Amino acid sequence: MSSKEKIIVIGSNSFSGASFIDYVLKENPLAEIIGISRSSENRRCFLPYKKNDGSRFHFYRLDLNRDLKKIMKVVRQFEPHFVVNFAAQGMVGQSWQEPQQWFQTNCLAMMNFAKNLTQETYLKRYVHISSPEVYGSCQNITEEEAVLRPSTPYAASKACGDLSLYPFFATKGFPLTYTRATNVYGPYQQLYRIIPRTIYSIKKGLKIPLEGGGRAVKSYIHIKDVCDVTLKIARSGNNGEVYHISPDGNGISIRELVELICEIMKVSFSDAVEMTKERMGQDAVYIINSQKVRREFSWKPQINLRDGLLETIRWIEEFLPEFGDGDLHYRHKP
Amino acid sequence: MSSKEKIIVIGSNSFSGASFIDYVLKENPLAEIIGISRSSENRRCFLPYKKNDGSRFHFYRLDLNRDLKKIMKVVRQFEPHFVVNFAAQGMVGQSWQEPQQWFQTNCLAMMNFAKNLTQETYLKRYVHISSPEVYGSCQNITEEEAVLRPSTPYAASKACGDLSLYPFFATKGFPLTYTRATNVYGPYQQLYRIIPRTIYSIKKGLKIPLEGGGRAVKSYIHIKDVCDVTLKIARSGNNGEVYHISPDGNGISIRELVELICEIMKVSFSDAVEMTKERMGQDAVYIINSQKVRREFSWKPQINLRDGLLETIRWIEEFLPEFGDGDLHYRHKP
Repeated sequence: MSSKEKIIVIGSNSFSGASFIDYVLKENPLAEIIGISRSSENRRCFLPYKKNDGSRFHFYRLDLNRDLKKIMKVVRQFEPHFVVNFAAQGMVGQSWQEPQQWFQTNCLAMMNFAKNLTQETYLKRYVHISSPEVYGSCQNITEEEAVLRPSTPYAASKACGDLSLYPFFATKGFPLTYTRATNVYGPYQQLYRIIPRTIYSIKKGLKIPLEGGGRAVKSYIHIKDVCDVTLKIARSGNNGEVYHISPDGNGISIRELVELICEIMKVSFSDAVEMTKERMGQDAVYIINSQKVRREFSWKPQINLRDGLLETIRWIEEFLPEFGDGDLHYRHKP
Repeated sequence: MSSKEKIIVIGSNSFSGASFIDYVLKENPLAEIIGISRSSENRRCFLPYKKNDGSRFHFYRLDLNRDLKKIMKVVRQFEPHFVVNFAAQGMVGQSWQEPQQWFQTNCLAMMNFAKNLTQETYLKRYVHISSPEVYGSCQNITEEEAVLRPSTPYAASKACGDLSLYPFFATKGFPLTYTRATNVYGPYQQLYRIIPRTIYSIKKGLKIPLEGGGRAVKSYIHIKDVCDVTLKIARSGNNGEVYHISPDGNGISIRELVELICEIMKVSFSDAVEMTKERMGQDAVYIINSQKVRREFSWKPQINLRDGLLETIRWIEEFLPEFGDGDLHYRHKP
């Protein structure tokens, strides 16, 4: 079943990007991958693929905003079958201060990159990693056809990135697909995300801040389940389509999630947390319908939340000496 | 009924912007308007408001991309009740070459401007002039809730402009409304648009190029009808809403439109036209449902196509010596 698949992963230092690289290297022993990120390669405690033999992976430090010509040179030499783009300026709260930076990276740079790729005939699929935040605060379960009503500059910049690519598909036949996954989690995620932050804080005896009491309901899916379907979409998705990726069930409040982690780790919830005020523009509900990928690819998530949390706890324990408290805070790189 | 209304019109040299200024100055004798454009004021043959006494209108040559600070100084001194933004990099075909310019103007500059306006408490409404092209090629009559599937970089940049503003409404209460009107026409429109170009070409004995045989169906609404409802939306629209503006009926093919003009002007259609090939990314169908404005504002179009064409012919005749054949071609200003 294995065939030589050449893949370029943009945003290879991101949790999702690095996990996708690891997943593909294991899933297809003939796969070759190039990872590109604007930052130098992360520490090994955040790069799952570092445990593989490194001969089928190469990393280039290049920035879509500044090094597009160099990136295109790498692309043209490698002639990838798939480009999977995880790169994005993340973090909702910070995007209010200098929204222009978020639009520059998440929209303009993406559009310019795709415009260049339209001429590359060996490319079978371009998978653009989007976000359900483009829908804004939805009251109901959100379908792929829902109206985009982003409520933060971050979400708007992601929505604009998505739309900026669409003409290349609609008019020029560019093999474009989009994914929008609910919150992902798993080993190797940045410590400032809720699940690893909670686990790390418990391990270190630090208080866990619960924004708005942790009322926000979100749904969490294990990164390996997301990687599985992302590779399926690269291989056989329908061009022009958005694919939602979400777990079973109707989500869990952040409070319940932290309670579950506390229970697994055998600590007292009330001792572990402190309440803080709500972030501006926080989306209250965040549940998306993923029937399309389930139907088209006979896919369903394999890893339940409790097992995924246990695996994440084991990762934190393995690398505990390598983390610092600085990893708990997002650092904005303009 | 009249009250002192202060309005800033961005894109005052555009056909729609200049017509809106003229409409408001006539409709409300107490209105005061500031017009802003990146180009120096157009010739009087393209500025309907020039026939009014000029004391209630002031023009500033300023560019949203370059002069945002100066624009905000003008805004803060004037303290407008309404800002109506017609500014946009137009023209579909040209947007394929340097899409980045279109995104810079139609998305980033708009977002930065709105971000600045969110702090201005005297502002009662911001009306953002969008375009039905954001929907792409639609097969059916398009509702305001339709999915955005722009098929050209121009359309994508307009869609991104729309989305980039939404967070300021959703999270910060910015009094934002959008309009999307079908093709507008009327006296003072740029000669490179189909209706004035056809009339001018007939007057000068020049051939009228019909792209793709003129099969594309579009609907045309008189600019005065659009100005009427745009002012109603500024005065009492619902924030966060998109409003479609369209005439009665299901549109007319460009061929039928040119045939009608030929009939009114008493010239032979087959002598007047020449067939040319289709533009890339031309949207085939372009019909939008405007029940929302009709219901909310008890509005309906007053000017039928034949009367509007007659009025446009009279304008061309009035200014015929002032036009040049250069006016028939769009000039791209980066």
